[in-house]
Amino acid sequence: MRFFVPFDARNPKTRLAELFDDGERREFARALLADVLAAVRGAGHDPTVLATAPVDVDAPVTVDDRPLTPAVEDALAGTDLPAGLVAADCPLATPAAIQRLVAVDAGVTLAPGLGGGTNALVVRTADFHVDFHGVSIRDHRERAREAGVEPATLDSFRLALDVDEPADLVEVLLHGSGEAAAWLREAGVDVAATDGRVEPTRRGDSGAEPG
Amino acid sequence: MRFFVPFDARNPKTRLAELFDDGERREFARALLADVLAAVRGAGHDPTVLATAPVDVDAPVTVDDRPLTPAVEDALAGTDLPAGLVAADCPLATPAAIQRLVAVDAGVTLAPGLGGGTNALVVRTADFHVDFHGVSIRDHRERAREAGVEPATLDSFRLALDVDEPADLVEVLLHGSGEAAAWLREAGVDVAATDGRVEPTRRGDSGAEPG
Repeated sequence: MRFFVPFDARNPKTRLAELFDDGERREFARALLADVLAAVRGAGHDPTVLATAPVDVDAPVTVDDRPLTPAVEDALAGTDLPAGLVAADCPLATPAAIQRLVAVDAGVTLAPGLGGGTNALVVRTADFHVDFHGVSIRDHRERAREAGVEPATLDSFRLALDVDEPADLVEVLLHGSGEAAAWLREAGVDVAATDGRVEPTRRGDSGAEPG
Repeated sequence: MRFFVPFDARNPKTRLAELFDDGERREFARALLADVLAAVRGAGHDPTVLATAPVDVDAPVTVDDRPLTPAVEDALAGTDLPAGLVAADCPLATPAAIQRLVAVDAGVTLAPGLGGGTNALVVRTADFHVDFHGVSIRDHRERAREAGVEPATLDSFRLALDVDEPADLVEVLLHGSGEAAAWLREAGVDVAATDGRVEPTRRGDSGAEPG
């Protein structure tokens, strides 16, 4: 099955600017993408990167600089169904998680992201339209019902975790085993226990060179 | 199977103090607990509330005012294995999620919580010892290996979400269907879209009476 992987090739991961400079954030975003591509391929599916600008990556790339919703909408319209999507910043994705997503027998299967997002989906009905603006998991449920199908929701922590904020790095370090986790370790990011949830720390201010 | 449900009966959910007063937090904590008990029972298992102080709830209660680790340790030592545990503040827990946890064939199965915690587990070996201090998911993996078993990790968003911070309320509203979600709605908490992840808001300052 074709899996589109939307990727911000221009200014990725701006909310990590307190920890990483521009070049580091671009490197890290590529490591996240590599983990997602590996998960899709490991599940036996075919990823296509849907990028906002040309990007040199070992996968087919479709460049579309429009906002996410029309770009994905056109990508899905131009491919055979069923087709899938998984966000490029979900480094805990595994082949098993992708297989669980694909195994759900529903017209539309949604994998929620933390904070109201939609991190992955599989579409089996041409009547479904994506909507990544706002609280997309809620909107996608509505769009599925408008298409005449009851959406299924996949219960997956691995697909729920997209990397947006520093706290998300803790999850990558604790649960990841791919390029993103390795990159963070080389960049000196570690897990610090606090009174509540743990937090990421970065050693010193030494400008450690990851990679 | 016996499932222990640790519950802070004294001063629960202090990190929600910006939204709810003491009495509200106690009410909300009871709604969270009710959802967890319903999930355990719905999965065909038997919950025992492991409370820090006496609590009037429709389930067997064991009172133990010690810290979580020795209280759970003694509870597990005093019951037949396999036995389970699920945190009382996981209102997205469903019978299906509990059944998936129990179905894993491993000496120790862990359901990670956001931020390094362990929100649920099933123990099949008496040699395993719990350790809820610090980054417990990492510690529990080590304790399992010390007990001679390779721990299994359940990939569940529903069990990963424990309610600690205001942002967690968004997940309850978007994905919950039990008493906690209903309580939040009656308390006037809603989901507000922002530039990034959505946030919870509470209407007015009207002292809306949930319940």
